[in-house]
Amino acid sequence: MSTPNLSLIFTKIPEGLPVPGEHITVRDVGFDLSQPAPPGGLVLETLYVSFDPYLRGLLRDPKIESYLPPAPLNKPIVAYSLAKVLKSNDAAFSEGDIVRHLLPVQQYNVYTPSESKPFKIEPGVGPEDIRHYLGALGMPGLTAYSSLYEIGKPKKGETIFVSSAAGAVGQLVGQLAKHEGLTVLGSVGSDDKLAFITKELGFDGGWNYKKEKSTQDVINRLTDGKGIDIFYDNVGGEQLEGALATLKRFGRIVECGQISQYNLPPAEQYPIRNTLQVLVKRLTMTGFLVGDANMGPKHAQEHQERVGRWLKEGSFKAKIHEWQGMENAADAFVGMLKGENFGKAVLKVKV
Amino acid sequence: MSTPNLSLIFTKIPEGLPVPGEHITVRDVGFDLSQPAPPGGLVLETLYVSFDPYLRGLLRDPKIESYLPPAPLNKPIVAYSLAKVLKSNDAAFSEGDIVRHLLPVQQYNVYTPSESKPFKIEPGVGPEDIRHYLGALGMPGLTAYSSLYEIGKPKKGETIFVSSAAGAVGQLVGQLAKHEGLTVLGSVGSDDKLAFITKELGFDGGWNYKKEKSTQDVINRLTDGKGIDIFYDNVGGEQLEGALATLKRFGRIVECGQISQYNLPPAEQYPIRNTLQVLVKRLTMTGFLVGDANMGPKHAQEHQERVGRWLKEGSFKAKIHEWQGMENAADAFVGMLKGENFGKAVLKVKV
Repeated sequence: MSTPNLSLIFTKIPEGLPVPGEHITVRDVGFDLSQPAPPGGLVLETLYVSFDPYLRGLLRDPKIESYLPPAPLNKPIVAYSLAKVLKSNDAAFSEGDIVRHLLPVQQYNVYTPSESKPFKIEPGVGPEDIRHYLGALGMPGLTAYSSLYEIGKPKKGETIFVSSAAGAVGQLVGQLAKHEGLTVLGSVGSDDKLAFITKELGFDGGWNYKKEKSTQDVINRLTDGKGIDIFYDNVGGEQLEGALATLKRFGRIVECGQISQYNLPPAEQYPIRNTLQVLVKRLTMTGFLVGDANMGPKHAQEHQERVGRWLKEGSFKAKIHEWQGMENAADAFVGMLKGENFGKAVLKVKV
Repeated sequence: MSTPNLSLIFTKIPEGLPVPGEHITVRDVGFDLSQPAPPGGLVLETLYVSFDPYLRGLLRDPKIESYLPPAPLNKPIVAYSLAKVLKSNDAAFSEGDIVRHLLPVQQYNVYTPSESKPFKIEPGVGPEDIRHYLGALGMPGLTAYSSLYEIGKPKKGETIFVSSAAGAVGQLVGQLAKHEGLTVLGSVGSDDKLAFITKELGFDGGWNYKKEKSTQDVINRLTDGKGIDIFYDNVGGEQLEGALATLKRFGRIVECGQISQYNLPPAEQYPIRNTLQVLVKRLTMTGFLVGDANMGPKHAQEHQERVGRWLKEGSFKAKIHEWQGMENAADAFVGMLKGENFGKAVLKVKV
């Protein structure tokens, strides 16, 4: 007996932005809801899916190496999800529990025991809104937390520039940096987002990069020509070039993302002309992955405790942008890549 | 009573390569050889001058900030020199001693006491050829030594690519890396230099970048597509881009120099299109100055002891390129910037 089970399938390798229905396609793959949970496993119903920029990198020709394995064609895309336990054959989980796990993006899944166990969300421990477990308390939050401290090395009185400052990672980086006593500047892609980071998140300044085309000029203006100590990069391209020009001696670049470049073929990628600044100003530019030993694993516990407490208290904010319905999964995915989301991008599948 | 005293004067800010007689000019500034040494000071006769790429960065518009103060116009260029003490008014130095110090590039100088004392070369301690105190045992050698260990973090079995491998810094980096058990590749600007690094210095491979235009292709060929762990950059530009493309995960870039870019206006600097690799492969790219606390000061004693011993034993080689005569100082300076030297560039003034 088959129940409808909409799934987001990777159907063709995209050159630029994926096109819904061509490169990524929502299809009913069916599900047998009468099946029992497998030995040691679970039957899960997806509540929310997390859409993050790194997913674009999985939709590639498998011959191209990168930091994560390529997604297999004609299979569902796999993403961090929140799901409800419908049936359990593992004593650690009960029917009705909510778990976070990397799951195929579809309405129903069977979890069979594997090395990485689902994370059970204990009611009452963290913030009421469980979606934060995909954002500020999830992978993007841990990414922000571990890399800001480990690579950015923020010191009171310094100035940081965060690109994509209203995004899942950027909004947390900015608030953490404020907490540490830094002057915080951010770039965003709309005036609404600009108002959000400066008025609600407490950023000291910011700009809409679609209106202010020269990152170097705007940083110079906002810092009275003094420049910045840390650049937290989520965007790459012109903003990276402008940051290189305005970083002070011994400045640090946390290379977290280059969303402006992911959908461009190599020949069209933005050319950075001032890498000489790395030398002249003794900068350090470091790439990382949240799974690296000195990143997530080292900082996970502290991140959960501190950010969980601050969110619960209300001293930290985490804006979430929600699309709804698995039937809209492909459009939501592309919307996230285009920066249409205002805050952490999630897809609500069912509550 | 004035003795002729040829001096290399900074006469005009160059846009590209300095032109002898226009931007840098040899002039007789005269010297009173009958004067006594000042209180606590010395009268010095220059024997050798060290010409190094960083000097180009001093010949700039003083409005442009950089890691070292700009050279003042219409004054002699200041460079590391070996000089003989003609007269001493400091008990630590005797007539006939040989010292190393940053001095105006001219035949005679008066040293007045300052924070940084001249370094006295003790006969019999290091190698017989005192010119090494400007190269492998001088600032370039300490640069190579401290940054290779501090930023490059070489591990046995890894592969390093050193650009400008026959230069003052590159030849030492390559030999140190061999000593640590790495596979060592180097790029050079002539077939003679290629024969030198592979046959005399023991590099495992190398190429003439004037003949092999794609750094990425040649590294892939020489490493069977496996790539490199460390890039020791003295050159910048296309070689940096090729290294970014071929660095392995967690690779390190020691950003020591970008000689290919120093004489270009910003708009003509080589654009690096694949900084995305820093992210994808979790690379670290770090600039430094030999005077930084964790560089020269931390490693100076070890550097002098180890490299001094190896040079004396003959297990390390340090090729020196000598121009002769202060009257040729401007041509030698430009020759060094153009890479005409084969080995560490020095000007012999008098022996």
